[in-house]
Amino acid sequence: MYLHGRNVLREILDLNSKKLKIKRILFTNQQNVSKELEELKLRCLKRGYKVDEAPPEKLYNLCREKKHQGVVVDLKEFPYTDFEDIIELSRNESVFPLVLLDTVQDPHNLGAIIRSAVAAGMRGIIITEKSSAKVTSAVVKVSTGLAFRIPISIVTNMARTVEILQEEGFWVYAASMEGEPYFSIEFPEKAAIILGNEGEGVRKLVKEKADYIISIPMEKEVDSLNVSASAAILFFELRRQLSGGE
Amino acid sequence: MYLHGRNVLREILDLNSKKLKIKRILFTNQQNVSKELEELKLRCLKRGYKVDEAPPEKLYNLCREKKHQGVVVDLKEFPYTDFEDIIELSRNESVFPLVLLDTVQDPHNLGAIIRSAVAAGMRGIIITEKSSAKVTSAVVKVSTGLAFRIPISIVTNMARTVEILQEEGFWVYAASMEGEPYFSIEFPEKAAIILGNEGEGVRKLVKEKADYIISIPMEKEVDSLNVSASAAILFFELRRQLSGGE
Repeated sequence: MYLHGRNVLREILDLNSKKLKIKRILFTNQQNVSKELEELKLRCLKRGYKVDEAPPEKLYNLCREKKHQGVVVDLKEFPYTDFEDIIELSRNESVFPLVLLDTVQDPHNLGAIIRSAVAAGMRGIIITEKSSAKVTSAVVKVSTGLAFRIPISIVTNMARTVEILQEEGFWVYAASMEGEPYFSIEFPEKAAIILGNEGEGVRKLVKEKADYIISIPMEKEVDSLNVSASAAILFFELRRQLSGGE
Repeated sequence: MYLHGRNVLREILDLNSKKLKIKRILFTNQQNVSKELEELKLRCLKRGYKVDEAPPEKLYNLCREKKHQGVVVDLKEFPYTDFEDIIELSRNESVFPLVLLDTVQDPHNLGAIIRSAVAAGMRGIIITEKSSAKVTSAVVKVSTGLAFRIPISIVTNMARTVEILQEEGFWVYAASMEGEPYFSIEFPEKAAIILGNEGEGVRKLVKEKADYIISIPMEKEVDSLNVSASAAILFFELRRQLSGGE
């Protein structure tokens, strides 16, 4: 996958993941474009990444984005985190809110949810293997590069994932219209919020495993909120509660 | 502008606005497609709208959307509401929360904000004439047709608009990183929330007119939230407070 932009490169350079597989990093061949770009190039070389140069037009042809800022990263694949590693991380921390996405299909929604999740301090995102948007370059762009700032894991069975989390001490909340208002919930330090598919919501089998069904009360005659809007509301209510209003 | 889909047509048929200027409504020429479509056609004819038929491919060529559901509405322009009429409406109601968009530029954000605003029960949206996304067919689509469910007004001078609202008794809240946490605010029944441009935020001159600057506390090292995520969080906090937690 081709990712562009200095901000994204900076996120990648800050990342410490064995899963990160960089094929090469392409910089513009224009000279003296910016000191920032030179510094980034040095950091890449120090890390032992393969660095090449190309005319700006060729960079554009890889990422199809005019605002590539003189750098394109050629990544083998997005560095997903194993679910077991997220569990391991959660054992070492007291506050560890999680996001479970049950077949969220729109890449724009996935990118927006990642951005809000990182901003709200959620500690991991778990998505389903089937019928889900995966982390593509478009998703990374919508997330403003923050997709590299949070562990994202793919699981095959979301219902089973809920069970495992519960065994680990998590309380699991599925978002659905018929639930109790989200603001009446007192979230614990280890909470997992499940958001469902754009059309169908959280699947029945997954919902049945959840400890609570929570809803966002809204105007009558309005069907639903966009899933990324619902996500922002729930994540920041959880944050407000866990941060003690700071 | 060409709008498509049965849901959007239904919203337009429910609308009671002198500003609504329909050129014509095009239905698929396929026979017996659905009873729903026949009923919609009857409603259009009863209202005296010009109704035509065309092959599905020709409908596609107008709206460039395969899922046009057999109907395309050809609208002269989006029926904006005069700012004076929004003021007039606000005088007759006790609870009247407003949204002010100060040069929000991305159509996707505008559509998402409209959708969340309607769901949260906001009563009007005011956008700036210059440097703002306007209500296009793409915006209507992202709003899931809800753009016809809320008065939307264009103003030339947002700072002056804030002053007029204040003279009308409104309290005005500008969203900005340096403000006080949104959850520490007790919103009054006539509150206006200003959201700013994706890159620059609320302009200085507008911000200075606001009664309060409010922020959404988030993780350090995260620059900002997407404006439509911020909007959802603020609108639903306001709704929660004004509805007394119902």
